[in-house]
Amino acid sequence: MKDKVKVIAFDADDTLWENEPYFRKSEDQFAEMMSDYMPPHDVNRALLKTEIDNLPTFGYGVKSFVISMIETAMKLSDGTISGKMVEKIIEIGRNQLNQPVFVLDGVEKVLKALQNKYKLVMATKGDLMEQEGKLEKSGLEQYFHHIEVLSEKKKSNYDKLIAHLDVRPEEFLMIGNSVRSDILPVLELGGNAIHVPFHTTWEYEKAEVNLDHASFHALEHIEQVLELVG
Amino acid sequence: MKDKVKVIAFDADDTLWENEPYFRKSEDQFAEMMSDYMPPHDVNRALLKTEIDNLPTFGYGVKSFVISMIETAMKLSDGTISGKMVEKIIEIGRNQLNQPVFVLDGVEKVLKALQNKYKLVMATKGDLMEQEGKLEKSGLEQYFHHIEVLSEKKKSNYDKLIAHLDVRPEEFLMIGNSVRSDILPVLELGGNAIHVPFHTTWEYEKAEVNLDHASFHALEHIEQVLELVG
Repeated sequence: MKDKVKVIAFDADDTLWENEPYFRKSEDQFAEMMSDYMPPHDVNRALLKTEIDNLPTFGYGVKSFVISMIETAMKLSDGTISGKMVEKIIEIGRNQLNQPVFVLDGVEKVLKALQNKYKLVMATKGDLMEQEGKLEKSGLEQYFHHIEVLSEKKKSNYDKLIAHLDVRPEEFLMIGNSVRSDILPVLELGGNAIHVPFHTTWEYEKAEVNLDHASFHALEHIEQVLELVG
Repeated sequence: MKDKVKVIAFDADDTLWENEPYFRKSEDQFAEMMSDYMPPHDVNRALLKTEIDNLPTFGYGVKSFVISMIETAMKLSDGTISGKMVEKIIEIGRNQLNQPVFVLDGVEKVLKALQNKYKLVMATKGDLMEQEGKLEKSGLEQYFHHIEVLSEKKKSNYDKLIAHLDVRPEEFLMIGNSVRSDILPVLELGGNAIHVPFHTTWEYEKAEVNLDHASFHALEHIEQVLELVG
């Protein structure tokens, strides 16, 4: 892997910095708000359904999440929730966007060690503006050549990304915490992938890891990346 | 201009295809919905204020527009509008995202004539997913090397874009309908810019054109681009 790879793409959310816990926290606040209508677990299940239904139209990110919370609140309350509640939901989204960014342990050490050996890019789905904001707050901007935003982390989009980067698939390495989004489509294209798990995974992103692939490595901690490509 | 330029970037909304009329139509529907509370002109003014206040947090695109409509409805009704109304607002956004794409007259002719002479990119702000969807529906995808999404079309982002494209500013030409977003920041950086007006401009995008700049051309119709770089 070390001799072939020219570009290393890092997933952002829950690979470089904490993200999923903020969604969990917002979901908890929302479930609490809706507790007059339904127990928290059922509220979360209804919200997840709305979110997945909305992905093709509204995509990823906090704005989409806000719209899904409002729609779910309308459904669960039969359109009776108050204007104040809707304002509170928008406030949950606004607060989430204004959270501090906590860079995960070992990330900066890895980026620093790799930055002069490879072209490093940040490859993220979700909202460009949100991700730029987080990158700026993280202090990690200096390590990346540029940001690549994919509307969906699927094979055809990675194909375009690799073409755009002017490398062959075997020269491309993706590092991320989501098997579904960061690993499987890249392996399918003939690229390299390293899975670094995060303690929390969004229900929708859960997938099985195919451990038998030659271009795939599953690690426990991001610092172990340096043993493979450092 | 013709001898120096290597990359031509086209703005998307209202340069390649109609966009602003859909926002106008949605705004009209929203103002109509809110007509019990305020005359249409005042509803639109309140909405514009909310949108501009929300730009730093929520950015451009339909999702942000939906959130701004909901917030405005809450403000104007003092939090009393019904769940049904909120659902209707979300529906306005969903409908807007599902509209057909009308490519503007002359666009395809220009792209076809330029595609083998220059690297063509689509440079848009707003939501990647929305813009990818429109590009696909437009049938223009084949002409572009790739899409560049800028969270905001400001000087520092064009600077990054030009660096990322590996060209010098004088080798970069931006074509678009917004003086504020497509023209002024590019000229400031030493790039080339061509303004092709669209019949409707969002209030926020209006700005004066500096006609005296050597690297700037103002055209009446996009086909005239071919007289400059064809």
